[in-house]
Amino acid sequence: MQIAMIDDKIVAADKLGPAYLDRGTFFGDGVYEVVRSYNSKIFALEEHLQRFSNSLSAIGIAGVDIDEIRKRVQKAFEAADIPSAKIYFHITRGSEPRNHTFNASLKPNFFLTVTELPDDTEEKTKGIAVSTHPDWRWKRCDIKSLNLLANVLARQDASQKGCGEAILVDESGLITEGAGSAFFAILQQKLQTAHLEVNILSSITRKFAISAAKNIGLEIVEKSLTPQQATDADELFIAVTTKDIVPVVKFDGQIIGDGKPGRYTKLLIQEFLKFTG
Amino acid sequence: MQIAMIDDKIVAADKLGPAYLDRGTFFGDGVYEVVRSYNSKIFALEEHLQRFSNSLSAIGIAGVDIDEIRKRVQKAFEAADIPSAKIYFHITRGSEPRNHTFNASLKPNFFLTVTELPDDTEEKTKGIAVSTHPDWRWKRCDIKSLNLLANVLARQDASQKGCGEAILVDESGLITEGAGSAFFAILQQKLQTAHLEVNILSSITRKFAISAAKNIGLEIVEKSLTPQQATDADELFIAVTTKDIVPVVKFDGQIIGDGKPGRYTKLLIQEFLKFTG
Repeated sequence: MQIAMIDDKIVAADKLGPAYLDRGTFFGDGVYEVVRSYNSKIFALEEHLQRFSNSLSAIGIAGVDIDEIRKRVQKAFEAADIPSAKIYFHITRGSEPRNHTFNASLKPNFFLTVTELPDDTEEKTKGIAVSTHPDWRWKRCDIKSLNLLANVLARQDASQKGCGEAILVDESGLITEGAGSAFFAILQQKLQTAHLEVNILSSITRKFAISAAKNIGLEIVEKSLTPQQATDADELFIAVTTKDIVPVVKFDGQIIGDGKPGRYTKLLIQEFLKFTG
Repeated sequence: MQIAMIDDKIVAADKLGPAYLDRGTFFGDGVYEVVRSYNSKIFALEEHLQRFSNSLSAIGIAGVDIDEIRKRVQKAFEAADIPSAKIYFHITRGSEPRNHTFNASLKPNFFLTVTELPDDTEEKTKGIAVSTHPDWRWKRCDIKSLNLLANVLARQDASQKGCGEAILVDESGLITEGAGSAFFAILQQKLQTAHLEVNILSSITRKFAISAAKNIGLEIVEKSLTPQQATDADELFIAVTTKDIVPVVKFDGQIIGDGKPGRYTKLLIQEFLKFTG
């Protein structure tokens, strides 16, 4: 590469910072995790590190020491000193002039942020509206990669409709999951959510939500829902790391149940908190 | 956001350069183009700018002045002073703390590089081998976005097999296109390539290759091929901006024709150059 340009300024190639040659930007060639803390304690860090390790392996980023990543996460969390924090971190394959094929010895880039989580009492007590969007994502959603444009476009569409989440519907008319969450329905004391396949992220909050559901006596059905089945459910909710369980009271404009967070959903929110203490 | 960490260093949030908060890295939330020059003249710049404009619209990045982009491309190309140059440029939605939904007034980021193109005489005269890979890409490949991890993984797989390109095969067993190129077969004086749908990029080199094929008297058939049909073809080639037409002489280990660049492919390479002068 001879020269580069940032906005309207020409820059000599050797003066470019590594962030400008990050394969994360050129290709989304990296993977990420989001963990949160409750009361100054990071929740389910080991589960997230295990999934992070799986994502790194799946795209062939080698040589990352997970023990070192754990130390960095803890160091940054302690430095930030925020009881209820969101910790985002990603690793990209590294920085080099753009080329699809990569040098396997490239040094991966690590980036992390710590942010204070807002108090989501209103979402929890009133519930949110959601809207459906076609699932445009790639076919390896089991990998938590930086290729998230489909998620962004779906979430923005939902936001413009006054909704808090987009529920993704695949070409066969089945709900896969939310743009940034797992999706659940409760019908006749059964908790239903899609089965984990390559088109769905292995959500850690989903796993704890299922455990909580078992604890309160719900039967678990792992089977995809159609939007019509979701509309007809007794209760709906989403599960996401940063907010754990959030009731859904409106689905594509249709009121769910009596339009308030459901009885089992409220029980699940309480039950979930037992894991986080 | 309170603090950040780059590799193993903690950084105050307000000390982070904009490249670290680029939505291009967090989400692949941007679009790009690659143009090239022949003999100190940029080829098909207007077609690329039109497609760039379409991609920007498709993902809702507003307020980009294409005339200004044209000026920047020309300014950088002139500054680099390379007769045979590859010019890569992208626009991302901008830099802000990570959040799926975006602020519509965010200032987009522009980035461009100019690189000297190597002389690919050997690929042109001997042809390349290609291998197939499942098409894992998202469902809006008509948008030239920065979500390219599926392309990277396919190309890397091909490279490890000693191949110069990965040919992507969808779930129904049909070839869509190459990981970074359009794909063509010639059989009985007909040129066959997939029809343009949302699962395929509107390749500009494809358009010129089709014009060249018409000029040498080939009939055009826009219909997807299976890998078996590709293997049985008289000739195969790929078309890509940086190399225009490159003969394919081996497909998944099977020799195509007599294992040398085909008669029509060689004619097309000559014919294509007439457009670039």
